[in-house]
Amino acid sequence: MKLYSFFRSGTSHRLRIALNLKGLRADYFPVDLRVDEQAQAPFKQVNPQGLVPALTLDDGRTLIQSPAIIEWLEERHPEPPLLPADPEDRAQVRALAAIVGCDVHPINNRRILQTLRRQFGADEAAINAWCATWIADGFDAIEALLARDTRRGDFCFGHAPTLADVYLVPQIESARRFGVDLNRWPLISAVDRACAALPAFAQAAPLAQPDAG
Amino acid sequence: MKLYSFFRSGTSHRLRIALNLKGLRADYFPVDLRVDEQAQAPFKQVNPQGLVPALTLDDGRTLIQSPAIIEWLEERHPEPPLLPADPEDRAQVRALAAIVGCDVHPINNRRILQTLRRQFGADEAAINAWCATWIADGFDAIEALLARDTRRGDFCFGHAPTLADVYLVPQIESARRFGVDLNRWPLISAVDRACAALPAFAQAAPLAQPDAG
Repeated sequence: MKLYSFFRSGTSHRLRIALNLKGLRADYFPVDLRVDEQAQAPFKQVNPQGLVPALTLDDGRTLIQSPAIIEWLEERHPEPPLLPADPEDRAQVRALAAIVGCDVHPINNRRILQTLRRQFGADEAAINAWCATWIADGFDAIEALLARDTRRGDFCFGHAPTLADVYLVPQIESARRFGVDLNRWPLISAVDRACAALPAFAQAAPLAQPDAG
Repeated sequence: MKLYSFFRSGTSHRLRIALNLKGLRADYFPVDLRVDEQAQAPFKQVNPQGLVPALTLDDGRTLIQSPAIIEWLEERHPEPPLLPADPEDRAQVRALAAIVGCDVHPINNRRILQTLRRQFGADEAAINAWCATWIADGFDAIEALLARDTRRGDFCFGHAPTLADVYLVPQIESARRFGVDLNRWPLISAVDRACAALPAFAQAAPLAQPDAG
């Protein structure tokens, strides 16, 4: 498999974690967002949407959109599971993931911030305030959901990593980059520490990638 | 089941379509976003995130986040299927859905537009331009993916509605509201016509809801 990734992209980061948790190897193809490589013809032949990550399978088919790729991983490579067995529990895990995947990450995405700068003249303070708003909104919701989970373990759901942790950890990384104080969310911070202790997470970190720099 | 919904919310709309396609009934509980009912204590006890939709099951558990709820529907009520059988095909359908669910809808969400008005003084022309940008980006990607699908039928994938149509149709509705010219995307427009002919879609439309007005 070929993984098209940018080291600092949150969606690439989450897919790298999922691949590592499944024990799968993919050849790493960096796509440099800093020079808009994702919007140029060679990469748009891989993914017409021009976004990372993308995963090209050995039969030549390319999967795009990290939520779709991660669900595919779970279906084709079910062990170890990243979703619990019970459908209502699966919905809980997927909801935590979707808070990050729909309501936080896309709003703070690079192309959005570029548009804020260009269309509204946002300076770096305004950009940081914008990002902090959506991170805080999402993390408040996740913290509240974790707090009312009577079966809570070390991770977002139970005692092993799930889809929810796969999504949350890259968002925490991004929160740090935007200078957000994580002390406001003790349960999220505890999950972050539990994940950081696992090689699958450590090896997926932005600075551990070949294109980091 | 209890469905917490706002007639004009795109995520509520997509969940209504999915419920209808599955032939499921839920009691309709309107949450009026125009008076911030979603952010007030009674609804936040239902969903701590303070967003619609939410679906309360007969056992009292509440599911949140439309992507999580719709996957739950597919697992608990598999007929008729909203995802194909083959895992790579499922990834294709989920990717089309995620383009709307992650890269278009959340960026044009009500709370984002309110922040653009407050933080950056955006007027209605700027708001419409903002929304049109992300709709066009996402629809360009979807149109390109539909165009290269050699097995294309009347819907986003094949000859029956899937998750992709469930997500796409509310976004088309929203595009119309923001004055976006849909003629640029003939394949998307054809899918829209195929869906509009089905009662499951017609009955889920914003103006067909009890709180419309």
